[in-house]
Amino acid sequence: MQPADLILRNALVITMDKDYCLFDPGAVAVNDGKISAVGKENTILEQFNAGQVMDCKGKVLMPGLINAHTHVPMTLLRGLADDLRLDVWLMGYVMPVEREFVDPEFVYLGTLLACAEMIQSGVTCFLDMYYFEEEIAQAVEKAGMRAVLSQTVLKFPTPDANSYEESIAYAEGFIQRWKGHPLVIPSVAPHAPYTCTPQILRECAALAVKYDVPLQIHIAETAGEVERMRADEGMPVVPYVKKQNLLEAKVVAAHCVHIDDGEIRTLSRSGAGAAHNPSSNLKLASGFAPVKRMLEQGLNVGIGTDGPASNNDLDMFEEIRLAALIAKGVSGDPTTLPARTALSMATRIGAQALHISHLTGSIEPGKCADLILVDLSALHNSPRFKRDLQSVYAQLVYSAKSTDVSDVMVNGKWLMKDHSLLTIDLPPLLKQQERYAHQIDAFLIQREKSILSKLIAIGGASEEESFEVQIKVRIPELSPVLEALNQPEIEILRQRHYREYDTYFLFDDPNQGRLRIREDHFIGENGEVYNVRSRLTLIGQAREGKFPQGVVLSRSRYLAPATQGLRFYREYFKPSRELEIEKDRLRYLVRYKDTEFYINIDQVHKPELGSFLEIKSRTWSRQDAENKSILSAELIEKLHASVDHSVFHDYFEMIEH
Amino acid sequence: MQPADLILRNALVITMDKDYCLFDPGAVAVNDGKISAVGKENTILEQFNAGQVMDCKGKVLMPGLINAHTHVPMTLLRGLADDLRLDVWLMGYVMPVEREFVDPEFVYLGTLLACAEMIQSGVTCFLDMYYFEEEIAQAVEKAGMRAVLSQTVLKFPTPDANSYEESIAYAEGFIQRWKGHPLVIPSVAPHAPYTCTPQILRECAALAVKYDVPLQIHIAETAGEVERMRADEGMPVVPYVKKQNLLEAKVVAAHCVHIDDGEIRTLSRSGAGAAHNPSSNLKLASGFAPVKRMLEQGLNVGIGTDGPASNNDLDMFEEIRLAALIAKGVSGDPTTLPARTALSMATRIGAQALHISHLTGSIEPGKCADLILVDLSALHNSPRFKRDLQSVYAQLVYSAKSTDVSDVMVNGKWLMKDHSLLTIDLPPLLKQQERYAHQIDAFLIQREKSILSKLIAIGGASEEESFEVQIKVRIPELSPVLEALNQPEIEILRQRHYREYDTYFLFDDPNQGRLRIREDHFIGENGEVYNVRSRLTLIGQAREGKFPQGVVLSRSRYLAPATQGLRFYREYFKPSRELEIEKDRLRYLVRYKDTEFYINIDQVHKPELGSFLEIKSRTWSRQDAENKSILSAELIEKLHASVDHSVFHDYFEMIEH
Repeated sequence: MQPADLILRNALVITMDKDYCLFDPGAVAVNDGKISAVGKENTILEQFNAGQVMDCKGKVLMPGLINAHTHVPMTLLRGLADDLRLDVWLMGYVMPVEREFVDPEFVYLGTLLACAEMIQSGVTCFLDMYYFEEEIAQAVEKAGMRAVLSQTVLKFPTPDANSYEESIAYAEGFIQRWKGHPLVIPSVAPHAPYTCTPQILRECAALAVKYDVPLQIHIAETAGEVERMRADEGMPVVPYVKKQNLLEAKVVAAHCVHIDDGEIRTLSRSGAGAAHNPSSNLKLASGFAPVKRMLEQGLNVGIGTDGPASNNDLDMFEEIRLAALIAKGVSGDPTTLPARTALSMATRIGAQALHISHLTGSIEPGKCADLILVDLSALHNSPRFKRDLQSVYAQLVYSAKSTDVSDVMVNGKWLMKDHSLLTIDLPPLLKQQERYAHQIDAFLIQREKSILSKLIAIGGASEEESFEVQIKVRIPELSPVLEALNQPEIEILRQRHYREYDTYFLFDDPNQGRLRIREDHFIGENGEVYNVRSRLTLIGQAREGKFPQGVVLSRSRYLAPATQGLRFYREYFKPSRELEIEKDRLRYLVRYKDTEFYINIDQVHKPELGSFLEIKSRTWSRQDAENKSILSAELIEKLHASVDHSVFHDYFEMIEH
Repeated sequence: MQPADLILRNALVITMDKDYCLFDPGAVAVNDGKISAVGKENTILEQFNAGQVMDCKGKVLMPGLINAHTHVPMTLLRGLADDLRLDVWLMGYVMPVEREFVDPEFVYLGTLLACAEMIQSGVTCFLDMYYFEEEIAQAVEKAGMRAVLSQTVLKFPTPDANSYEESIAYAEGFIQRWKGHPLVIPSVAPHAPYTCTPQILRECAALAVKYDVPLQIHIAETAGEVERMRADEGMPVVPYVKKQNLLEAKVVAAHCVHIDDGEIRTLSRSGAGAAHNPSSNLKLASGFAPVKRMLEQGLNVGIGTDGPASNNDLDMFEEIRLAALIAKGVSGDPTTLPARTALSMATRIGAQALHISHLTGSIEPGKCADLILVDLSALHNSPRFKRDLQSVYAQLVYSAKSTDVSDVMVNGKWLMKDHSLLTIDLPPLLKQQERYAHQIDAFLIQREKSILSKLIAIGGASEEESFEVQIKVRIPELSPVLEALNQPEIEILRQRHYREYDTYFLFDDPNQGRLRIREDHFIGENGEVYNVRSRLTLIGQAREGKFPQGVVLSRSRYLAPATQGLRFYREYFKPSRELEIEKDRLRYLVRYKDTEFYINIDQVHKPELGSFLEIKSRTWSRQDAENKSILSAELIEKLHASVDHSVFHDYFEMIEH
């Protein structure tokens, strides 16, 4: 008789080993945190003398589930904003909130909550990618779960580092401190090929190789990412990261929605794993990952929930079911990804994908005792057809719910018994979480109050403090004005030709101002477009004052480069109305009587408003403004136009009025 | 102050009315089974004097969910067989089991179990299609749920009727008895266009119109159905059923996976509703229903679980979430089918689709009090962002689980309070369910023991009791034999020319025999194929006896028409090996010495085995067999062939040996 700490007996044991051995009634002997033996109940009871024997009657005993890709602290952002496009969701809500709130306290709390949710639903191990992984590791240790924790590296500043060098230094320190820990496997995560430089990818790979730890990265999540990579680098995403030596590390590639057969082969040959995130890929409309082909080509594909803010939970039962269902829908073949295969992706194959199959993923002697009990007696699981033991896989995947998990053990230690969490005291954590929600609500309410604060939130709009003196007059034709520019009193300092495409967003509350998205096409001498620039401008409603002869003093404007497309701004700012204006603009910077002016000669084509001469100059004082208003009016007359034809409205106002 | 039986107060009330009114804190006044008022808590408390007031603190109060398409008694078949193609699943497992087990007791039990599962998960109303709806109605009445119950009509015999006329008569009696019931709305269900004749569709429509009750039908569930309809009728499915006057009734069209924009418009204009079943459509790989386009064109689309044997549960929370997710994945647009819309499909729009929106589907004064409470305090639902009350829809759809439903009321009567069922005593029902499972297991084990019993299960194979005398000889060329047929002693009674394509399924256990799937192409005088016939034959292993001169007496064979394709039989019988043989056969029925014989002149092309002359005759006694063996040998010589070249093996055995 061999000694054991614990025997779990009288269960339907699903080993999820390579032969998919089942034992009913079966038993598992656990000693010193490890699985000593698994087999028929009688055999185990005969061979082992256990300090404790637990009867698992009516339950399935199986390896704990592995969540192959997530961002656990985002439990604090679940439900923050939904049913939005990825960019609006990310740049309009998640990133501004993260910039404001993510710190060590935030990630520690979020991780403990995520661990509690995962333990309740039968997850014993997960792969995380976030910031402050040091605090995440401490929370994981407290919760008693197993986790591969990847410290994020980006080419931008992050909540935990001002530069990528800092991030890599942080990651190295983190790896050094946690390597060899019984539960935490430290790792590094260059966030994605498009958010990292080649240098970052190379340094991260070198770091992972140096310490022999996994490297996690988002790969080909959206079709747009692949398109841009092909346009910029002439190759799809996997060859590109291979070129940066990334595949020399033990890679876990999250998503892999848009990879082709060649890329699958490349990943498979390099020993990389993939993480399939069906809920997230559907919810964000990223697409359908080619899971069937990945598995056929021997790639280890795990299943992940992705962050709870884009899912919106950490429920692996839902995720496994969804993986099994959509693979059938996409292939048109209901025998695709049968229940047993789907479950293996969340256990043994998932562990292989995470490069930790020596530790966990199946019930086999020598592996860690990461075990769960699932109660299949609930109505929604019944009846139980017993002619074929294999039917239990379908029962677990298609019928069972995460709430059927009753007991969870990691490394031989119980984390949940009979639905009660043993390592985490939930109520105070939930209170803290609500406090954060309250603060985040207040932050967003404040920000969403005005178009200006929303503009600042997404792109650091810069307020231009200057006032502008401005006069605009209608002109019947261009040539007299152009000829008149050639006179000694007017010195032309610079000259440009643009075609300007403006979209104005109007809002129900006029005090919000109007938002202009302008695309300037720079026209060369031969009519070619040699540059394009996009800018956002928030235009205040009121005029500060009027001077004689139609000269106006206009309010300051807020400017930001328009890095997103029109569609993004439309969905983010939700204008009540839009207007479009297209015009041809000749723009001159001139000096007249020692004063600089901009002269715009505009032909407004869409709508056909006619031609205009506009003279502008920045001003800093009332006196200066007065002087410039007089000079502006003079210039108008010099250019053979007349202040009698001055117009006070912006072009978009002419359409409105 | 108006009187009320009950006020539900201090809830976040989601009315799901057309304006999506929300009240927080809100209240609902219920009187005599109906909703008297809904609004702000203070307003309701001021207006009503209630016998009972219930505090719903921390919970969402919303209309009960509507399951728009299911087959409830199939709770007894959940997990029977999974990950199979629709035809194998249906004809190999479900239909044989239904033929054996479905009776009034079966459906009553299955319905009570389904009602319990649905009540537990917040469903207050469902649309059923099955047999013995009379007993289903009694079970629904006992459970206290609301349901539209459709009695199935098919062109084949069903468990409850020997002919379609019987089914329609049953349906009419059922409708007469239940019409006007406070909970049960009787209905008729011609099963599907391809399982009904035009006459059946017309009669069902007339019945539904006569009694003004809903009519349910499966429409365009698979691409194959549409293809066959186009081939046979020159139109897709919806125009075809319209031609049979079906759309004059209040139709609920289940599935609608493969309908085009024109069909959507036709359905929408006729006032029909549709039932979307995402889990079932994915699990059976039927495809992705064009839900976005249906909604855009004003078609009322409800959400259904389909039968629990093809889902494998009755969880509307899963179904709503899945509907919202896959619509985004398919459209490539994450703003498609936002949470609120998805939830409305399971409430108000679902009721419209079922033609019962005057009764249920939203919290509005005058509608029945079909209400549920959902507890959003669980970890997986937290935190709660409150800056926008609308975020509760996303919380319910993307985060909440069916197990968060705590209380359920139908028609003003509590069916579940604090997770306890009040109308159904579950434990004895679960025991009965297990007894059925045990019996069904035994039935399937018995049937799956032999290829013969599987063959009988799917198609009523007929055992041919006759024995056959048979001699086959190799011939170098055909022409001498053909010429020799023209002699006075041989009278040719009939003559046919076939090309025969045989597939043999071989099994590891030789006692199972071999299964031959033969396709006979009938060749006309000009070489054209004028008929095709497919047959299954189970060929026993042993010979019964041998006679001199190479004549053999062969065992009886089991024959069935092959109504399915080769793929079906392959997946159903799971052969360990297959062989293919193609031959050209000239077949003569002749009379020789007052005895009838079949003469086959075969050229075996695949593989190239050569040419053979075969003479066969049925026999009923040992003496007759002896006589015929002598005559057969004579005939061989008369046809210029030689019994010295006789072969004992079937063609497939020649390949094997």
